[in-house]
Amino acid sequence: MSSSDIFLGETIGTAILILLGGGVCAAVTLKRSKAMGAGWVAITFGWGFAVLTAAYTSLGLSGAHLNPAVTVGIAVQSGKWGDVPVYVAGQMLGAMVGAALVWICYLGQFRAHLTDHEVVGGPGAQATAAADGRRSVAPGPVLGVFSTGPEIRNPLQNLATETIATAVLVLAILTQGLTKGLALSGTGVLITALVVVGIGLSLGGPTGYAINPARDLGPRIVHALLPLPNKGGSDWGYAWVPVVGPLLGAVLAGGLYRLAFA
Amino acid sequence: MSSSDIFLGETIGTAILILLGGGVCAAVTLKRSKAMGAGWVAITFGWGFAVLTAAYTSLGLSGAHLNPAVTVGIAVQSGKWGDVPVYVAGQMLGAMVGAALVWICYLGQFRAHLTDHEVVGGPGAQATAAADGRRSVAPGPVLGVFSTGPEIRNPLQNLATETIATAVLVLAILTQGLTKGLALSGTGVLITALVVVGIGLSLGGPTGYAINPARDLGPRIVHALLPLPNKGGSDWGYAWVPVVGPLLGAVLAGGLYRLAFA
Amino acid sequence: MSSSDIFLGETIGTAILILLGGGVCAAVTLKRSKAMGAGWVAITFGWGFAVLTAAYTSLGLSGAHLNPAVTVGIAVQSGKWGDVPVYVAGQMLGAMVGAALVWICYLGQFRAHLTDHEVVGGPGAQATAAADGRRSVAPGPVLGVFSTGPEIRNPLQNLATETIATAVLVLAILTQGLTKGLALSGTGVLITALVVVGIGLSLGGPTGYAINPARDLGPRIVHALLPLPNKGGSDWGYAWVPVVGPLLGAVLAGGLYRLAFA
Amino acid sequence: MSSSDIFLGETIGTAILILLGGGVCAAVTLKRSKAMGAGWVAITFGWGFAVLTAAYTSLGLSGAHLNPAVTVGIAVQSGKWGDVPVYVAGQMLGAMVGAALVWICYLGQFRAHLTDHEVVGGPGAQATAAADGRRSVAPGPVLGVFSTGPEIRNPLQNLATETIATAVLVLAILTQGLTKGLALSGTGVLITALVVVGIGLSLGGPTGYAINPARDLGPRIVHALLPLPNKGGSDWGYAWVPVVGPLLGAVLAGGLYRLAFA
Repeated sequence: MSSSDIFLGETIGTAILILLGGGVCAAVTLKRSKAMGAGWVAITFGWGFAVLTAAYTSLGLSGAHLNPAVTVGIAVQSGKWGDVPVYVAGQMLGAMVGAALVWICYLGQFRAHLTDHEVVGGPGAQATAAADGRRSVAPGPVLGVFSTGPEIRNPLQNLATETIATAVLVLAILTQGLTKGLALSGTGVLITALVVVGIGLSLGGPTGYAINPARDLGPRIVHALLPLPNKGGSDWGYAWVPVVGPLLGAVLAGGLYRLAFA
Repeated sequence: MSSSDIFLGETIGTAILILLGGGVCAAVTLKRSKAMGAGWVAITFGWGFAVLTAAYTSLGLSGAHLNPAVTVGIAVQSGKWGDVPVYVAGQMLGAMVGAALVWICYLGQFRAHLTDHEVVGGPGAQATAAADGRRSVAPGPVLGVFSTGPEIRNPLQNLATETIATAVLVLAILTQGLTKGLALSGTGVLITALVVVGIGLSLGGPTGYAINPARDLGPRIVHALLPLPNKGGSDWGYAWVPVVGPLLGAVLAGGLYRLAFA
Repeated sequence: MSSSDIFLGETIGTAILILLGGGVCAAVTLKRSKAMGAGWVAITFGWGFAVLTAAYTSLGLSGAHLNPAVTVGIAVQSGKWGDVPVYVAGQMLGAMVGAALVWICYLGQFRAHLTDHEVVGGPGAQATAAADGRRSVAPGPVLGVFSTGPEIRNPLQNLATETIATAVLVLAILTQGLTKGLALSGTGVLITALVVVGIGLSLGGPTGYAINPARDLGPRIVHALLPLPNKGGSDWGYAWVPVVGPLLGAVLAGGLYRLAFA
Repeated sequence: MSSSDIFLGETIGTAILILLGGGVCAAVTLKRSKAMGAGWVAITFGWGFAVLTAAYTSLGLSGAHLNPAVTVGIAVQSGKWGDVPVYVAGQMLGAMVGAALVWICYLGQFRAHLTDHEVVGGPGAQATAAADGRRSVAPGPVLGVFSTGPEIRNPLQNLATETIATAVLVLAILTQGLTKGLALSGTGVLITALVVVGIGLSLGGPTGYAINPARDLGPRIVHALLPLPNKGGSDWGYAWVPVVGPLLGAVLAGGLYRLAFA
């Protein structure tokens, strides 16, 4: 693959990933969205099918890494690091473009959420929203649409969760997606997307499963730049966890692959 | 493919698409349906599997576009516009047939919903229905079973959402479904159906994701014609948005394909 | 395929279908089940994966019809009726075995449901149960675990819904499952299972989607025979609808196939 | 396959299975998890995608049994018992490693759940948690994250449910996964994972569907060893049921395969 194809594919693919992934967070948590209060199942399947759509689209151009942790895991496994900067540059740019597109798609909902004071739905709807949506919008009122945040703030614990969750993802991709003939196939993409749903359902409870540095950092930068009233802070104190954790997980998975599967 | 196969395949396929897609909206929102209050996850998977069933059935006859935006996107990509009118004619006829079949399947529920005044279920069920179902039935009481409507009425914002959501769909179909060997395959159809679930989960919040001019306009015409008491208006003032937005998205996706992927 | 393989395959396959399909109805509606109140999404996916498991198991022996409507639809399409009695006999026997297995697996829950009077869960759980579960248990308190029943009793309307829903299923199977190379394949079985989820989500609201005469009649006979206290009647007055409707739908689909797809 | 590959593959695979499977139980039932109260659909899909991720990762090394019942079922079917001890040793070790990883990922949530007394969410959230989560945490407050327990304690009934549910799983794997060309394929792994979702939805209500002796016994041992305050007992009185039942089911399925399918 040429460098320009890699850059283009990763930019377009990661933009779609974040548009749909950030989109489902907006859909479930913002006021006056038809999906408000649809809950954790909606969020995890939404992110999984975001991976499916993004990977399916960009597979032919760049191989659809869409995640610096995947790129680093493959580099550790193969020993080839030359294309890493191009991949990561495309992923970061794409993630920022995707976050901006979420903002355009949900502009009215962002405004309503940040300025309205009325309560939508009856007491049951309120309780559901409290259980599913509001709690994940921390610490700023809409930061949860852009970036992840922990339910219990403990950097070492949060780092461990992100590291382990990412190691599972990268190991699954290394063992089958890249080496056993399912790479670049429709079935391989579909399984990887459902693996992401599974990681979200199972390991997303403590930190909201970034498992991808670009997925978290790119939209956080966009949140900091966007002209949203009352948007709250961008929680830069936590920003290193969903970058370092996934990269540690990727190195762990790449190393385990070389020990056990090569 | 012959013109008669295209017309027949698109008519049958789009009728199945709208029968199942409109059907899930009826199932979740109408009184005295077993699925009442089942929520946004049910609606988005229902529409996705409607695409799966319809495309799986009509694949061999017409290639299963089932959507003028897909047909236009392929025409922009390939430069061949000859079959477009036949495709769109079959899609519009099929969408109207499908909407009429929803009416037949849910005739008792429509009557109960439009004339009953009693409350079904306890307060929790009410709240759920308020959060999931009733709000999407706007502005007429049952128009939401037929056509889409925005949560916040702002034509330019609504148009942008529909344009972006459709561009994602058409680009995914162009890059893999038609050019990389997954076209006309079971795996390709399955992935496309799950992509539609994903677009619904992620980008359906503001407008209810028409992403298909025939899906919205055909059933709206049927709504206007059906002899339902108290059915309310057909909201013709909004009708252009889910036609123009998807077509803009298709042109955008086709153009992007020619720039980046060809 | 030999007649004994067909009979054995259909018996085992349909037993698994009803064990898992009746099982999810028991799981969601009976007291003291961990899945109580899990709702319509659980029921429809449960039935779909029941089809998946049953068809995947019996594919090699009998081709996995598991449904007299599918068998009749194939006979109408192909003009070959010789194996029909063997298929249907296996399906009816299997459906009755499966219903008895549900009774064994949920024996404690049946007893608790039919004799306990305490309320499980808080008011929200009650409301959910009222919306999802209890309403589908009609007219006897546990008949809904075995057979389908309409929300609004109107034989002609109910017949139309079952006919249309089954025609969609059989047409999808005829057009792709049997004629285009996906028959007897894993991908074909998976898609058919998800088509059944979709038909349930979209067209199950009025009657509970039997779409299979053996699925409804076999368990209804078992319900009539089982020694359950306070089990209520078996609603024989409705029993003809989920037999005749699906068979009409099958003939319709077979005929449409010969007109449009052959 | 070499013994060391089998041992390594089963250890890694079963560790991933329990990490994600125990993880989703933690996510849905523990306080201060973003998925708290997400319910039975989340739990069953979480376990199914745990199977998907684990099997996809270990397929090439060990064939991905990940379950002594699967190993025994294959031995009964093939008559070859030589590798059984290596498989089971890897599965038991992996299950214990996986349970320990769940503890690391959800350390903060375990502590909050076992020591906090405040109520999270409004009354609706409470009711949902009561219906979905709390009830399955029996008899110790967090044992449900590690091992299964019955809703109605009746050893013979519970044994019957586990036996039947496991027989369905093993028969499905034997008939297609191992003998008809779908073994060791992506599509076969995906279908098997969805079969597990289906068994959970349909037959999980009475006992929580262990259907795997290692899945239940390994984490139960870890629960007994972990230094958690107020963790309650490990319910050793029930521990034999989810070991003996699945093994009985495996023998039943292997025998049925030899009678009907060979």
